[in-house]
Amino acid sequence: MSNKPKGLTPSRRAFLKGAAAVGGSMAGGGAALAASPDPLIVEKQPWAQGTGDGVDASPYGLPIQYEGDVVRRNVEWLTADTISSINFTPIHALDGTITPQGCAFERHHSGAIDMRKEDFRLMINGLVDTPLVFSYADLERFPRENRTFFLECAANTGMEWAGAQLNGAQFTHGMIHNMEYSGVSLRSLLEEAGIKPEGKWVYVEGADASSNGRSIPLEKALDDCMIAFKANGEALRKEHGYPARLVVPGWEGNMWVKWIRRIEVTDQPIESREETSKYTDTLEDGTSRKWTWVMDAKSVVTSPSPQSPIKHGHGPLVITGLAWSGRGAITRVDVSKDGGKTWETARLANPGQPMALTRFYLDTTWTGEEMLLQSRAMDETGYVQPTKAMLRETRGENSIYHNNCIQTWWIKSNGEGENVEVS
Amino acid sequence: MSNKPKGLTPSRRAFLKGAAAVGGSMAGGGAALAASPDPLIVEKQPWAQGTGDGVDASPYGLPIQYEGDVVRRNVEWLTADTISSINFTPIHALDGTITPQGCAFERHHSGAIDMRKEDFRLMINGLVDTPLVFSYADLERFPRENRTFFLECAANTGMEWAGAQLNGAQFTHGMIHNMEYSGVSLRSLLEEAGIKPEGKWVYVEGADASSNGRSIPLEKALDDCMIAFKANGEALRKEHGYPARLVVPGWEGNMWVKWIRRIEVTDQPIESREETSKYTDTLEDGTSRKWTWVMDAKSVVTSPSPQSPIKHGHGPLVITGLAWSGRGAITRVDVSKDGGKTWETARLANPGQPMALTRFYLDTTWTGEEMLLQSRAMDETGYVQPTKAMLRETRGENSIYHNNCIQTWWIKSNGEGENVEVS
Repeated sequence: MSNKPKGLTPSRRAFLKGAAAVGGSMAGGGAALAASPDPLIVEKQPWAQGTGDGVDASPYGLPIQYEGDVVRRNVEWLTADTISSINFTPIHALDGTITPQGCAFERHHSGAIDMRKEDFRLMINGLVDTPLVFSYADLERFPRENRTFFLECAANTGMEWAGAQLNGAQFTHGMIHNMEYSGVSLRSLLEEAGIKPEGKWVYVEGADASSNGRSIPLEKALDDCMIAFKANGEALRKEHGYPARLVVPGWEGNMWVKWIRRIEVTDQPIESREETSKYTDTLEDGTSRKWTWVMDAKSVVTSPSPQSPIKHGHGPLVITGLAWSGRGAITRVDVSKDGGKTWETARLANPGQPMALTRFYLDTTWTGEEMLLQSRAMDETGYVQPTKAMLRETRGENSIYHNNCIQTWWIKSNGEGENVEVS
Repeated sequence: MSNKPKGLTPSRRAFLKGAAAVGGSMAGGGAALAASPDPLIVEKQPWAQGTGDGVDASPYGLPIQYEGDVVRRNVEWLTADTISSINFTPIHALDGTITPQGCAFERHHSGAIDMRKEDFRLMINGLVDTPLVFSYADLERFPRENRTFFLECAANTGMEWAGAQLNGAQFTHGMIHNMEYSGVSLRSLLEEAGIKPEGKWVYVEGADASSNGRSIPLEKALDDCMIAFKANGEALRKEHGYPARLVVPGWEGNMWVKWIRRIEVTDQPIESREETSKYTDTLEDGTSRKWTWVMDAKSVVTSPSPQSPIKHGHGPLVITGLAWSGRGAITRVDVSKDGGKTWETARLANPGQPMALTRFYLDTTWTGEEMLLQSRAMDETGYVQPTKAMLRETRGENSIYHNNCIQTWWIKSNGEGENVEVS
């Protein structure tokens, strides 16, 4: 690793030596145009020779064919069957903060079911004054909210406890998405049924065969949970719980029950399969933590990374990534190029929003040196994202869930990246 | 029209008489469940009997088949050929503020062209120190921004000048979309080339056959314009200018040049076809206004509306819609049920953001009375959306563009809607 000083901010003028001066020698144009010796200047452009597609070409639009690699991918060895498995958001290829539904990862316990709005029913029962069944049309008549939240699977980065395993941000950190939800507050539905004084928890379950039942403290249920029917403006996708799912801001994705069919108010947690044999964290001494609902502050550099190598020459380089916290807003992200020895504070594209993805950028200069790229998120509670070593001290290496450690990408002098650990 | 008093806020308890009490008589369940006499309670649900789709079902996800009507639609009589035409965003069926790219309207002057990133070139020439040609890879090396903006075609609502023409919010107001853009500031590229002191305008053009050239004052170009390559996190769609388009916040959509190929710094406007014979506003006396770039404050009720009738019984009703202003943030939206005689202030789902769509809701009670539904937006400059009569006073009926008048939907006692004018 080089010991070069902290990245220099490139000067505004003569920023890109790679951009070709018009009429100048292309040979002097530098690396940025190396892919094509022909600048395809205006006179040579082919697209003005004819017409393109009409507005009837695609009533529902799809990505252009050149973006065919920007898709969800699964990892075959992770589970025995795709109906109880996971795929990953291609975060290495996205920018901004919104995750398009088409790219948003899936996790199913018994597959994505096919339910018409007309067949949807949501029962609220248990310790309530009046047990109720809501149709989808009923839900639409309650006051609606719009809020943007990340959803992270508790197992995101879960394969990395014992070492650097998966070679790409999509696979190490892609069990996450971030959408603008429209729906109604869970509170409004619970109040419609009337909660009895002894009600302290809700038990939520979905209509799929797994039912995926989870217990949620009443305080959280009444605080900010939603029953959402739209994401990024349009109906939820089948694989994300169409026609309605639970939104549990900042808490592990498993609790965001899809195809939600029942909410039972109880006086204690149910201790279901999904919160005992699964979604608990086994510690070094063999005991397990439970009720670890909140997703702690975390971040990852999405580019450059193994799936998004540096393909241009030396000079200006944009390092970018995502940060998030289940405890509130991200307030700062630092980036290290030397495996955590020195840090630079990144630029947040916009002020952090509570429990939503935050995009960060570090505008820097690269002269071909190897880098051990890391990012470190801080949230409004003062929490600082830990190193893997720090996390192992308290948690050991037997956990699957809640691995929010600092990630390291080894960026080589040829621009390629690799998932590594630093001691 | 009834003269009922202003909508009453429904009480929190016993909010939905339509929701079925479990075990109670379904006949007493009311209108909200009338579509199905069977509550499909938990024991009868079919989805738990088997498994669903695996995570390999759709690497790039699509809407579920039941949402097949939520698509862009064109209106055949508007233009002679779809390659120089328009289609419309299904705003009547969306919620929240983000428009998914697949639903976002298109407007082409010579069709949507097919350009690979590798073939993209952007020239900056004219009154600059160093004319430059940027590749797509070059653009990615400049500091990036993320910002959410609406894009409205200047002709949105343009068929409505002489009367109520098109029966649905999709067709009257659907030449609009709202996305989170990622890209670089136009300022950074212009500064890289170096603007000569006599440079006062930029002339921007696209790579399609129409070229769609437009003049933009340098002040705006240096203020907040972007060259965007992503929208809602992923690559721009082909029909929205892949791989890169111009973003001109708050200004008419025609200026947001797609497939951008050239930016010429000039000392005066070019007076191109797109800003002389088109995109000017013919007034009552036969003269025309030009340089009417900013989209004034505007709003529309998206539901209930002709394409989104009230299908439930009496009781709670959610009235919702969109508001926006090219001059800044929306600060307030009022809703009238009686054609503008009386107004209620709607609830903004979130505080208005500059030059972005704002979602509003009015949570009210409907007892089957006819309504003349209107919405009226106000922005941070104090501007108030005008009535059609007010707009005609100054503009006549010969314009096509910049019709931001208050829209009226006649909601009948059977819940159906119709586009009407009120005198």
